[in-house]
Amino acid sequence: MKRVLIKNIGCLQTPTGSYSHKGSKQGRNVKLEDAAVAVEDGIIKQITEGGRLPEGEFDKIIDAEGKLVTPGLVDGHTHLVFGGYRQNEIPMKLAGAGYLDILNAGGGILDTVRKTRDMSFEELYSKSQGFLNEMLALGVTTCEAKSGYGLDLENEIKMLKVIKALDEKHPMDVVPTFMGAHAIPPEYEGRGGEYIDMLCKEVIPQVRRQGLAEFCDIFCEDSVFDARQSKKYMEKARQEGFDLKIHADEIEDIGGSKLAGEMEAVSAEHLIAAGEEGMDSMAEGGTTAMLLPATSFYLDKTYAPARRMIEKGIPVAIASDFNPGSCPSLNLQLTINLGYLKYKMTPEEVLTAVTINPACAIGRGDMVGTLEENKQADMVIWNATDMEMLCYRFGSNLAHKIIKKGELIK
Amino acid sequence: MKRVLIKNIGCLQTPTGSYSHKGSKQGRNVKLEDAAVAVEDGIIKQITEGGRLPEGEFDKIIDAEGKLVTPGLVDGHTHLVFGGYRQNEIPMKLAGAGYLDILNAGGGILDTVRKTRDMSFEELYSKSQGFLNEMLALGVTTCEAKSGYGLDLENEIKMLKVIKALDEKHPMDVVPTFMGAHAIPPEYEGRGGEYIDMLCKEVIPQVRRQGLAEFCDIFCEDSVFDARQSKKYMEKARQEGFDLKIHADEIEDIGGSKLAGEMEAVSAEHLIAAGEEGMDSMAEGGTTAMLLPATSFYLDKTYAPARRMIEKGIPVAIASDFNPGSCPSLNLQLTINLGYLKYKMTPEEVLTAVTINPACAIGRGDMVGTLEENKQADMVIWNATDMEMLCYRFGSNLAHKIIKKGELIK
Repeated sequence: MKRVLIKNIGCLQTPTGSYSHKGSKQGRNVKLEDAAVAVEDGIIKQITEGGRLPEGEFDKIIDAEGKLVTPGLVDGHTHLVFGGYRQNEIPMKLAGAGYLDILNAGGGILDTVRKTRDMSFEELYSKSQGFLNEMLALGVTTCEAKSGYGLDLENEIKMLKVIKALDEKHPMDVVPTFMGAHAIPPEYEGRGGEYIDMLCKEVIPQVRRQGLAEFCDIFCEDSVFDARQSKKYMEKARQEGFDLKIHADEIEDIGGSKLAGEMEAVSAEHLIAAGEEGMDSMAEGGTTAMLLPATSFYLDKTYAPARRMIEKGIPVAIASDFNPGSCPSLNLQLTINLGYLKYKMTPEEVLTAVTINPACAIGRGDMVGTLEENKQADMVIWNATDMEMLCYRFGSNLAHKIIKKGELIK
Repeated sequence: MKRVLIKNIGCLQTPTGSYSHKGSKQGRNVKLEDAAVAVEDGIIKQITEGGRLPEGEFDKIIDAEGKLVTPGLVDGHTHLVFGGYRQNEIPMKLAGAGYLDILNAGGGILDTVRKTRDMSFEELYSKSQGFLNEMLALGVTTCEAKSGYGLDLENEIKMLKVIKALDEKHPMDVVPTFMGAHAIPPEYEGRGGEYIDMLCKEVIPQVRRQGLAEFCDIFCEDSVFDARQSKKYMEKARQEGFDLKIHADEIEDIGGSKLAGEMEAVSAEHLIAAGEEGMDSMAEGGTTAMLLPATSFYLDKTYAPARRMIEKGIPVAIASDFNPGSCPSLNLQLTINLGYLKYKMTPEEVLTAVTINPACAIGRGDMVGTLEENKQADMVIWNATDMEMLCYRFGSNLAHKIIKKGELIK
């Protein structure tokens, strides 16, 4: 048994509670001063405060130097695995081209699909591993990753196998989501319905059989998949035993958030255009709002109505949405800044939104997302005295040390 | 003599031209493929392209691995030296308090003044040195730093001595600006005019005598210093031999940009609210627009009319404005993203705006800001293939290697 002590924690700030899927509806945190954490074989055994120390002998002692310690961050929404980049779209964008103009010129998501299909398992693994290293250094210890740039059986499976291998070999815990319904592939142009049928018949069962994903996600949006198609896909996914996610109301509210609540999806993503009816449905269904502020920032859009969601008792999570099209940033610290600056969330609400709430929405709320006894010892020692500092300073990596399962990673 | 070769440069992208104070009015860059740079004692001796290599023997060879190389970035506007932080203002801000509410509650800039006065030379030096290390790692090789949190003779001199010591001891070139007229100190509450008189009579001549600054800057803004006071201060500064800068039109256009052009200031800062008359005056006076997009971002304001300025032939520079109040970010890479995303500047214009134009505006246009023969060998090897990538990816530090005066720093 390996015993590790993290001592001299100036302030240990954490949400509390363990959940299976439904996140915390309030952002309140516990703050312990002059705290210490005893870890046994990667699991938190005891937390003390007020200068008292846990009893016993320790194999290793980590000095937090009086700094802020929080749970390791959880990035609940990424498109981590992809081929190429899309910086070459800049001239078109500066000339005023919109999403559809770029798509029609052979760019956009189908460009990424082409490049992802062209890359081998090893190439995708190596590229994604680099991203995970960077995310970890920024304080993220658990993340979700979606397929969705393969858009056929072979390449979706390839992506999911990359995600599985990363989860197994990289210190980061990586939770896999199948998102075959991310776009209509070129082979099915104008036949989105048939593509959904194919996914339901051939791909979803195969993903289940191979145990390659825990969630199914779909892009419910005008000119992608409509609410009826989304419902069909989600019903099939549920029938196969998957938990559900849905990209909803990013551009227009075409019923995605309403469907999310009705289907009791664990989370709905984006929600920039979510209306009252959709939000009420989500509140009733216990669906977490997975908000992606860096995408609003990058696309120069408005920001999702986070405060309204909190008022309605919807658990709010904040994630990076890292992807090569609408959000080429993997920096969850920047979304902490945006949560405060643009969503007007309090530092406590923000911490909840990047720890326990996304943890719940990716099925890890019982293991990570808070610092409590019997949970996994994933934590960050920050170059900061308080969460306010993390909301306030931006553009710097404030993560000082990263502890994953009780081991010092950085 | 030490000879260094930087070889295998996939793309060497740089503006061209050396200037004393007036920056480049256009953003066009030169791009050399498969290039190499020969350096002698920190000075660029030869640049080759198309796979040809400079002749001669070298003491050290740096392999750019086919990546993008640009001039080292120049941050032309920082408030690098300050006491404390102001994250504790977050609850007031979330409750809707404005700048004046916070100031009246004893917070805001006067809080920073108090904490800066309380810190010793050594404490300020050590804190600022940490920031410079981070800026350098992000690709900045030359920066400006302003006084302005002392607001009395003793503490303004203390700040300027910290800046001078940093310039001497740190690899970063740090250019000093005296900004005693940053705010009205508590001792002069309601007597801004008398404070300006005191600065003109006692402080400016002393700063000149001790050789502690190259520029004088003033905050010309409603409820700080008006255009008449600013003119008086600037005239005195010019008389003492300083070049001029002015914080103008950040919140309201009260004549600051017009004055900047009339006085032929080397730069005017902020310019969010600049009108046509002020911009025309700047164009005529050859004044560089020192734009600070991260401040617009942090304060949730609109962005300065960069494209209109470019149309008018005003040299545009982009800087961090790093300070503990309105922009707690020192990350110039983030301002590159904002230059593209919010100002709608092209990648070439953005590179010009973070290299040669700020270099000119801080009196270093003859030494740094471009990669050309006989200039200082300050350069960045980027984890990128092109400038488009630097504009597009955000939230990651893409600086791979930093070369300062021909020496590998990172």
